[in-house]
Amino acid sequence: MNTLHFLNTQDWPRDRLDALLDEARNFQKSRIGTALQGKSIALLFFNPSMRTRTSFELGAHQLGGKAIVLAPGKDAWPIEFEIGSVMDGDTEEHIAEVARVLSRYVDLIGVRAFPKFQDWSVDREDHVIRSFARYSTVPVINMETITHPCQELAHIMALQQHLGTDLRRRKYVLTWTYHPKPLNTAVANSALLIATRYGMDVTLLCPTDEYLLDPRYMEFAQQNASENGGSLGISHDVESAYRDADVVYAKSWGAIPYFGRWEQEKPIRDAHQHFIVDEAKMALTNKALFSHCLPLRRNVKATDAVMDSPACIAIDEAENRLHVQKAVMAALVQPGMENGE
Amino acid sequence: MNTLHFLNTQDWPRDRLDALLDEARNFQKSRIGTALQGKSIALLFFNPSMRTRTSFELGAHQLGGKAIVLAPGKDAWPIEFEIGSVMDGDTEEHIAEVARVLSRYVDLIGVRAFPKFQDWSVDREDHVIRSFARYSTVPVINMETITHPCQELAHIMALQQHLGTDLRRRKYVLTWTYHPKPLNTAVANSALLIATRYGMDVTLLCPTDEYLLDPRYMEFAQQNASENGGSLGISHDVESAYRDADVVYAKSWGAIPYFGRWEQEKPIRDAHQHFIVDEAKMALTNKALFSHCLPLRRNVKATDAVMDSPACIAIDEAENRLHVQKAVMAALVQPGMENGE
Amino acid sequence: MNTLHFLNTQDWPRDRLDALLDEARNFQKSRIGTALQGKSIALLFFNPSMRTRTSFELGAHQLGGKAIVLAPGKDAWPIEFEIGSVMDGDTEEHIAEVARVLSRYVDLIGVRAFPKFQDWSVDREDHVIRSFARYSTVPVINMETITHPCQELAHIMALQQHLGTDLRRRKYVLTWTYHPKPLNTAVANSALLIATRYGMDVTLLCPTDEYLLDPRYMEFAQQNASENGGSLGISHDVESAYRDADVVYAKSWGAIPYFGRWEQEKPIRDAHQHFIVDEAKMALTNKALFSHCLPLRRNVKATDAVMDSPACIAIDEAENRLHVQKAVMAALVQPGMENGE
Repeated sequence: MNTLHFLNTQDWPRDRLDALLDEARNFQKSRIGTALQGKSIALLFFNPSMRTRTSFELGAHQLGGKAIVLAPGKDAWPIEFEIGSVMDGDTEEHIAEVARVLSRYVDLIGVRAFPKFQDWSVDREDHVIRSFARYSTVPVINMETITHPCQELAHIMALQQHLGTDLRRRKYVLTWTYHPKPLNTAVANSALLIATRYGMDVTLLCPTDEYLLDPRYMEFAQQNASENGGSLGISHDVESAYRDADVVYAKSWGAIPYFGRWEQEKPIRDAHQHFIVDEAKMALTNKALFSHCLPLRRNVKATDAVMDSPACIAIDEAENRLHVQKAVMAALVQPGMENGE
Repeated sequence: MNTLHFLNTQDWPRDRLDALLDEARNFQKSRIGTALQGKSIALLFFNPSMRTRTSFELGAHQLGGKAIVLAPGKDAWPIEFEIGSVMDGDTEEHIAEVARVLSRYVDLIGVRAFPKFQDWSVDREDHVIRSFARYSTVPVINMETITHPCQELAHIMALQQHLGTDLRRRKYVLTWTYHPKPLNTAVANSALLIATRYGMDVTLLCPTDEYLLDPRYMEFAQQNASENGGSLGISHDVESAYRDADVVYAKSWGAIPYFGRWEQEKPIRDAHQHFIVDEAKMALTNKALFSHCLPLRRNVKATDAVMDSPACIAIDEAENRLHVQKAVMAALVQPGMENGE
Repeated sequence: MNTLHFLNTQDWPRDRLDALLDEARNFQKSRIGTALQGKSIALLFFNPSMRTRTSFELGAHQLGGKAIVLAPGKDAWPIEFEIGSVMDGDTEEHIAEVARVLSRYVDLIGVRAFPKFQDWSVDREDHVIRSFARYSTVPVINMETITHPCQELAHIMALQQHLGTDLRRRKYVLTWTYHPKPLNTAVANSALLIATRYGMDVTLLCPTDEYLLDPRYMEFAQQNASENGGSLGISHDVESAYRDADVVYAKSWGAIPYFGRWEQEKPIRDAHQHFIVDEAKMALTNKALFSHCLPLRRNVKATDAVMDSPACIAIDEAENRLHVQKAVMAALVQPGMENGE
């Protein structure tokens, strides 16, 4: 039997995602538990974090477990991920040893590893976390790589808190927003995956076709929409996209065709600063909820007025990270857990 | 009811400071407790720390709680503190979100944020911690900003251990000392505040009037002296200041008139290296106790002979950080705690 | 009575090392215990770590204790180690205060402090950890300085798991291997010490006499061999050294005569890349076990084929770090523990 990991929601059947969300709601009511008693999790941060770090470390503790926080290349050795590599460069240790040794120490491994932003054909392989999953003998949890499945669960949980459990046919807009730097597509990919999974009518709003997401995720989303009674559309028109929306989810990301040539994308991004989420756009909606995964640059991605309005549920979504991740950790250490893939 | 914070001792009535010190003495006798059972604290370090980090993290643990250590801008996102700012620069996240999200995760927030040393009119607003207090819905603890109230309690506790609970009319000298760099005035401000609060006859000994502290703290200290039966004096004369002192407390700090123009202050500082605390000066005192908040540069601020003498209670004071901070954390999570301001 | 530290295995009698290994085997069977209930350990990392950090932090937790991880000069103040120093340079705090204050907070202090690689006559004094041991009033544990005694115990435990408790007269080869940078001799020194302590027939295989280890450790090893029925030999011939070996332990290290003049050593090192542990060499042995302390550069120090073979027990050895360090911590906090030196 293969080890069960939590790398992507797409690997998990819908009923098991629902079970995670139910368990998360239990943890929201009662924070302290024993599911990780005597257990431990290594949290490997190749990139910075505030919410993820706090919610995982605290969540493990509240369930009786212990989190060990490691930052490879900073307070731990730089890691080699290539198989067969002659390691005469900067890396001091191979993932085979890192994953195997950590598997001897801990019961779970969480990994945050953003893309390198040099070559999407490389980044899209999600090499770091897949290598951990390959060599680790304990479950591996995605703490954001090229997708962000923990954020997905927190997001859906927040929507269900405000709109009810059944989200089918709700009009959901994922809108690209400006950011001075090209950002990871992870949360955008994840938003498409989970919103279609829960049967919403999803519109991907972005400046041009160059900002479409990787075909892998576009196709998964299309398939999810077909299977769950929703739909997936693409729009470059702000007004029609916002019109009658029930949910506006904002995120900035870099355009895949310009990967590694970011100076060429910059003028395009700069020309679309008006994609900022503001009161005028929100007024077009069906009193839509607004959310964002955070961190968010105020008055760049969304205005103060939107962020401070009752429509904004970003803080609820952030809180839910604590609850859903506890549900994920608890599920993965259960004895007899079968592989969901 | 506003949230009760521990930002400054000046905000807290004297009987509640005394209660914190009593509780700290209990924690010194018996380190393990349950006051933070099921609770947590986020410790945000914008600046480095050894004692503060260790004593808070350990103190929370010993009371059954969990500390999460975060270093914004290093292992967490850089934070914006201005209201209404268009965040198109380096900051990735606004204090409004940081404080609100952390308030959903934890029960207490500790903040260390030193001045920027560019413009005292900005630094003196204590913007970082005041922003946390403004947006946080859980109590905020000052782990050193432009004052250092935890150090104050540890300091008074150490003096009471050696001189008895009633410190009134004890001659207390706060002496400036040399340091190759301009340092924070926080501990100096704090020493004036707490020594006058406990009714001591306080002398601020410094090279010139340029080293006087911010009027806010000078005035609070004067008011404290009036209310508590002590006095506040200023001296630039080493010999008369040390004469008959019961307590010598040393600290280096930068001269406020030279804020942001440090190259111009340097010759003045360099000319006063003889302010070092040495045996000859200590011999002028009434067998005074000597202390310092640490870290201390030996043979620059104080000689080895003074540091290693029985008069030096700096290690006791450092130990007390553990006890007083546990008292502060325990007080702030008590249900029904009213706002002390 | 002096405080008992764990600075070197050489300071500890053999029966007490055996007792540590017995206790480690107990901890392997049952990870959770109470030996550190209400206790704490400060882990000071002057250099990076993955295994050591994880195994100490987790080990303390599993025994009911609390580890505080500090990185002086990074997230804590830079420390001065010279006695009598006028601290007008970069260091902000003297070891005397650091050790004394930490001793007030915690029950144990772990220290990782690699050599500076500038001057072996300085590095060989092991000044950092010896200063901690001098000023600390609680036990100090060596987490790798110029020796690595925790690794020694983990190594012997792994050998005993595979070869039985009695290791006498086993043929043990410590082989130098290539690495693009000059590395610490700590694990090499430690391998000589512990292998001779357990009565093995030890061969130190290295390119030239310039790679012999410090006479202090060569002499201890010779003395250990005499006292424990083994032997110590030196070889520069790969084939005869490997022939009939029961254990091959690999490590790279810098040549002491070239300390601080590393550009002059580089051509010598570069000329000996064929010291890599590969299948052809392993085929010469008596089906030897292979191990390494990790991190290991694959296909530089050892080939993938060797690392992935059943002969490789490096992962077992790494796991044992958790068990032996728990045994060391538990032993050092026992009341009435006498000084082993």
